[in-house]
Amino acid sequence: MAGNSFGKLFKLTTFGESHGEAIGGILDGCPAGLEIDLELVQHDMDRRKPGQSKIVTQRKEPDTVKFLSGIFEGKTTGTPIGFVIENANQKSKDYTHIKDVYRPSHADYTYDQKYGTRDYRGGGRSSARETACRVAAGAIAKQLLPEVKITAYTAAVGEIDLKKSYKEVDFSEIEKNPVRCPDPAIAREMETFIKKIRSEGDTVGGVVECVIQDVPVGLGEPVFDKLHAVLGQAMLSINAVKGFEYGSGFAGAALKGSKHNDLFNEDGSTKTNHSGGVQGGISNGMDIYFRVAFKPVATIMQKQETIDSNGNKREMQGKGRHDPCVVPRAVPIVEAMAALVLADFYLLNKTSKI
Amino acid sequence: MAGNSFGKLFKLTTFGESHGEAIGGILDGCPAGLEIDLELVQHDMDRRKPGQSKIVTQRKEPDTVKFLSGIFEGKTTGTPIGFVIENANQKSKDYTHIKDVYRPSHADYTYDQKYGTRDYRGGGRSSARETACRVAAGAIAKQLLPEVKITAYTAAVGEIDLKKSYKEVDFSEIEKNPVRCPDPAIAREMETFIKKIRSEGDTVGGVVECVIQDVPVGLGEPVFDKLHAVLGQAMLSINAVKGFEYGSGFAGAALKGSKHNDLFNEDGSTKTNHSGGVQGGISNGMDIYFRVAFKPVATIMQKQETIDSNGNKREMQGKGRHDPCVVPRAVPIVEAMAALVLADFYLLNKTSKI
Amino acid sequence: MAGNSFGKLFKLTTFGESHGEAIGGILDGCPAGLEIDLELVQHDMDRRKPGQSKIVTQRKEPDTVKFLSGIFEGKTTGTPIGFVIENANQKSKDYTHIKDVYRPSHADYTYDQKYGTRDYRGGGRSSARETACRVAAGAIAKQLLPEVKITAYTAAVGEIDLKKSYKEVDFSEIEKNPVRCPDPAIAREMETFIKKIRSEGDTVGGVVECVIQDVPVGLGEPVFDKLHAVLGQAMLSINAVKGFEYGSGFAGAALKGSKHNDLFNEDGSTKTNHSGGVQGGISNGMDIYFRVAFKPVATIMQKQETIDSNGNKREMQGKGRHDPCVVPRAVPIVEAMAALVLADFYLLNKTSKI
Amino acid sequence: MAGNSFGKLFKLTTFGESHGEAIGGILDGCPAGLEIDLELVQHDMDRRKPGQSKIVTQRKEPDTVKFLSGIFEGKTTGTPIGFVIENANQKSKDYTHIKDVYRPSHADYTYDQKYGTRDYRGGGRSSARETACRVAAGAIAKQLLPEVKITAYTAAVGEIDLKKSYKEVDFSEIEKNPVRCPDPAIAREMETFIKKIRSEGDTVGGVVECVIQDVPVGLGEPVFDKLHAVLGQAMLSINAVKGFEYGSGFAGAALKGSKHNDLFNEDGSTKTNHSGGVQGGISNGMDIYFRVAFKPVATIMQKQETIDSNGNKREMQGKGRHDPCVVPRAVPIVEAMAALVLADFYLLNKTSKI
Repeated sequence: MAGNSFGKLFKLTTFGESHGEAIGGILDGCPAGLEIDLELVQHDMDRRKPGQSKIVTQRKEPDTVKFLSGIFEGKTTGTPIGFVIENANQKSKDYTHIKDVYRPSHADYTYDQKYGTRDYRGGGRSSARETACRVAAGAIAKQLLPEVKITAYTAAVGEIDLKKSYKEVDFSEIEKNPVRCPDPAIAREMETFIKKIRSEGDTVGGVVECVIQDVPVGLGEPVFDKLHAVLGQAMLSINAVKGFEYGSGFAGAALKGSKHNDLFNEDGSTKTNHSGGVQGGISNGMDIYFRVAFKPVATIMQKQETIDSNGNKREMQGKGRHDPCVVPRAVPIVEAMAALVLADFYLLNKTSKI
Repeated sequence: MAGNSFGKLFKLTTFGESHGEAIGGILDGCPAGLEIDLELVQHDMDRRKPGQSKIVTQRKEPDTVKFLSGIFEGKTTGTPIGFVIENANQKSKDYTHIKDVYRPSHADYTYDQKYGTRDYRGGGRSSARETACRVAAGAIAKQLLPEVKITAYTAAVGEIDLKKSYKEVDFSEIEKNPVRCPDPAIAREMETFIKKIRSEGDTVGGVVECVIQDVPVGLGEPVFDKLHAVLGQAMLSINAVKGFEYGSGFAGAALKGSKHNDLFNEDGSTKTNHSGGVQGGISNGMDIYFRVAFKPVATIMQKQETIDSNGNKREMQGKGRHDPCVVPRAVPIVEAMAALVLADFYLLNKTSKI
Repeated sequence: MAGNSFGKLFKLTTFGESHGEAIGGILDGCPAGLEIDLELVQHDMDRRKPGQSKIVTQRKEPDTVKFLSGIFEGKTTGTPIGFVIENANQKSKDYTHIKDVYRPSHADYTYDQKYGTRDYRGGGRSSARETACRVAAGAIAKQLLPEVKITAYTAAVGEIDLKKSYKEVDFSEIEKNPVRCPDPAIAREMETFIKKIRSEGDTVGGVVECVIQDVPVGLGEPVFDKLHAVLGQAMLSINAVKGFEYGSGFAGAALKGSKHNDLFNEDGSTKTNHSGGVQGGISNGMDIYFRVAFKPVATIMQKQETIDSNGNKREMQGKGRHDPCVVPRAVPIVEAMAALVLADFYLLNKTSKI
Repeated sequence: MAGNSFGKLFKLTTFGESHGEAIGGILDGCPAGLEIDLELVQHDMDRRKPGQSKIVTQRKEPDTVKFLSGIFEGKTTGTPIGFVIENANQKSKDYTHIKDVYRPSHADYTYDQKYGTRDYRGGGRSSARETACRVAAGAIAKQLLPEVKITAYTAAVGEIDLKKSYKEVDFSEIEKNPVRCPDPAIAREMETFIKKIRSEGDTVGGVVECVIQDVPVGLGEPVFDKLHAVLGQAMLSINAVKGFEYGSGFAGAALKGSKHNDLFNEDGSTKTNHSGGVQGGISNGMDIYFRVAFKPVATIMQKQETIDSNGNKREMQGKGRHDPCVVPRAVPIVEAMAALVLADFYLLNKTSKI
């Protein structure tokens, strides 16, 4: 499974299964001399961690990141940053019932087919627990780019939609509610809905929107590694993601060029921003904004028909501790992946001209 | 600009500017012993080439691919396949008016900022002419996977939408009209609309849908290189793309898990296919389907305000030969990129188990 | 420092400093279904570990490898294999005297210049302690290729040379003496010499020879990734290595073609083996053999003049626990790197033809 | 054959067979704004090209490099530099006699085994003709690093050895004789010997030494991508190379640490240079010097026994035009590969610290 690395110069490689002893990673290529604020790292870990509120999974993990190398006397040394996060609160026996059974819309079947085996405990490697490593590394990426402001929030839960442009919302409201929606009234509506869904043993999807401000001009590498293309891969690699659009997105496909084009101001900024901060795959200095669609969590607490590994019909019901809606905890993951992308392109861009 | 390669084992690297002497590429990692049907390659080139109908750009390029290596006595030898495509019909003087002027929503400004220079003729490297190389390589990828059927078509032009699931359409209709829409009536509507838009000196966006059938189970490499994540990057790297969604996509974010989950049949296939043929980043053997949003072409034949490289206000009007809507010619490009992704994962999957 | 990964499909990434909390790595791309014998791993670790005999450094490290992921119920799962090795016996205060002083022929000066900082404790990242991770991963690579036999041994210590072709030596003698030289008499001579050198506070270099038998035909990827070229990089990346030659090596440069050419037997094997098992960068099934030159350890227990980070003259004398000759412990490292190279090419070769 | 790329940021990918229509390559990642002197490129091509003197192969190739992209108005644009070199003077019928016969110590057998097929004309991809592309790209790398001086020369032909340290030789003599040996008397001896060898229908090996002066401190990426390790791979990837040593090399393995260590001057330079300009895998600013061993050319004009692809005994005799000694033409190839390595590390080093 040679797909566990992300980035070219600022490169994260992760390891670990949901119910193994620990997860962790190596961040290679972080420049030397960067002062690391470990509290900022833990702050993002806490925003992602399970058990943080009543509308997320109740698995209790402190998710403390233990750095093993690459940081000396508070600063990066240019050597690889190795880190581990213990799995403290596994309840693997919750999963013995799925040892031979394929959960619908999970990765059980495809892992078994591809590898001929799988660690079935808690989804093993396919669990979103792996994203904790991304958040740890992303928190360092953010510190490499202190002037860049990356802000994600919940834009939809099921059919409840924020229905506002990012320009209209107050970012300071995001972390004030457990849903991470910047509109307090809609946040309450979403929270109530998630609770209702959970009480039904069901789950629901949603949309995360992300805005990146104060991006330097020039990030992104044409042709195949356009900034928005790599951002897209980064977001689509997050568990449960079904779609990615940036700038005008799918709605932009219905427009005419005369309306869609962003006319320039004299300083190179643009009057409108349908481009979403990226032109020709390269950042133009305007705000980057994009939307990420998450499907409903596949583990539901209702009975479902399925099959076992011998192709026999079976009935199953979810056990274990799960999120009724992944979106609130996905917000810091989206930010982390965005930070990793930008950090990598920031370093790559140092070689674009003599 | 170290971003001109795509793929890990089946790897395409391209070069070339719109108005340089030639474009071309190197396809490295194609297994030896593959019989190459050059007519199939040219067939896809012809589907992409300019001047093929009245609703596309009238630049005339034969777009004949000249293979220089890697094929001997009709078969691949395992060595890199080098190829060139001449630029026969450049009219570079059409572009002297933009030498110092930034076209709105083009890459002129960002290239200048990133590289400190640019080949302004026809957009240089940022031109979609580069995608001809992708189509050439993709046509070889298709031949590596003869059992896999990749079919793309126009699903929307501006606000005219096909409004049908791929299950409902007749693929045999696609190539019968210049828009490449599988519904003859809607195709005519789209064609009329594109002509109208062109007559107004304007452009319009659209959506391409792609369906991949008979995919082997097991393609895709978790965690970061999930099949749909790399497909997403591939599509977003095509010029003018603003969004990508697969399976249930953005609409799926509004659903509940109890409705979204795909229940298994006893043979491992699923009763529904909201997953879009991919679970946990790995193909499950069901149809893969996805949608790609294209913005309207930025070059319009209307007067627009803009600035020059000194930050002075300028007025400009598009010259040269351009597509009023990029979608009909994008259809084979989408297919080609899909083929490149699958070919690469097909080779990678040979090492997934002992 | 984005140079901490080795391999394309079977890829090892390592982290860790000599006196940090732990060192470790991630082995990505190991096929699923491989039964792992942990005792074989530990056996190789023990062959490399410090304190194993009187002629090596007396730092005491159990060097127990703790696997954190990727192995489930005794078999690989195809997911990344994360592992850590604790640093148990650091004596960092041995190194405070070199905090601002550059040890001659060490990496202190170059790290400071490149990174603007360094972890001076025990050489930090530049310490050969990092190679413990290579041995751990190499032991898994060996298990992936059970039919291939990789054997390294000490061929020279200082001017004491084995002076025998690998064909003439008895591999079963290698591990019977602490020098790992297959000739008992010469081994004793080497051992006595190393003890004498140590008593003088000095160090000495040497040569490791490695033989790889029963290699499948077809490993190696022309043009730049020729089997012997990647073996060469692998060996030269080991601390203190100054040279690499395979087959006829430097001596072969003095020969005529009529003498150097290896004539074929009817089964494709060759009558002689000046080629060293590699022709055109691809294994031909004959024994691969190569020699690796190691310089004398730079840390000596004699007074040396040097400079500090301000360019002032200083006098220093080695402290800490060091090897008087690195070669005996380098033997398993050479084997491990050879195993990593072969495992990677073995996987790559699965895609060479349809 | 996914091994046709070299470099991480400054990346060359080559294609082409000896008797195909053309060879060529793509140099991706060259920074924008670099003025390219095409005469300097051609100058190095001429130093490598066949037919340049009486002691090399008489195949006549102008070896003119045709640049197709990436250079505009005399400067690089940051886009990939595509180039082709025509094969003008193939005499493929010289090779029909080896269609089914394996030449001893050539790549015929291993290519057939690995790929199941091969382009037998002139050795196909395994021919050293491919190195023309390296020289073209290396000539651009040299221009990226104008302050660095890379000088290679012939240090041995068969048993005739220069027997001088690079410090003792006069570089200005190198290009004054067809052997490229800096000592006129020894050069004549070598030339006479090569002519004698050729008249016997035989070939001979030799050694190229290379010196790199005025290297910036800090190039090279520990751990696996140490400067000398990547230089080693680069050199070993050149056709016919059997060994690589730098600094004190194999001779250094016999020394004691007290003699081998390079003591510092107050400015950070060292009094001796056994290290060969590299410490801990990173350049220290001192001269880098290394030696490369080349085996005798395998094609000899004498009768040899061999086998065909069915395992039958055959007798064969070399035809075609070949070098009796590859070393004189290898000199610019060694320089080119050194330049590619340094250019890549130069770019990578831009990200080593904040």
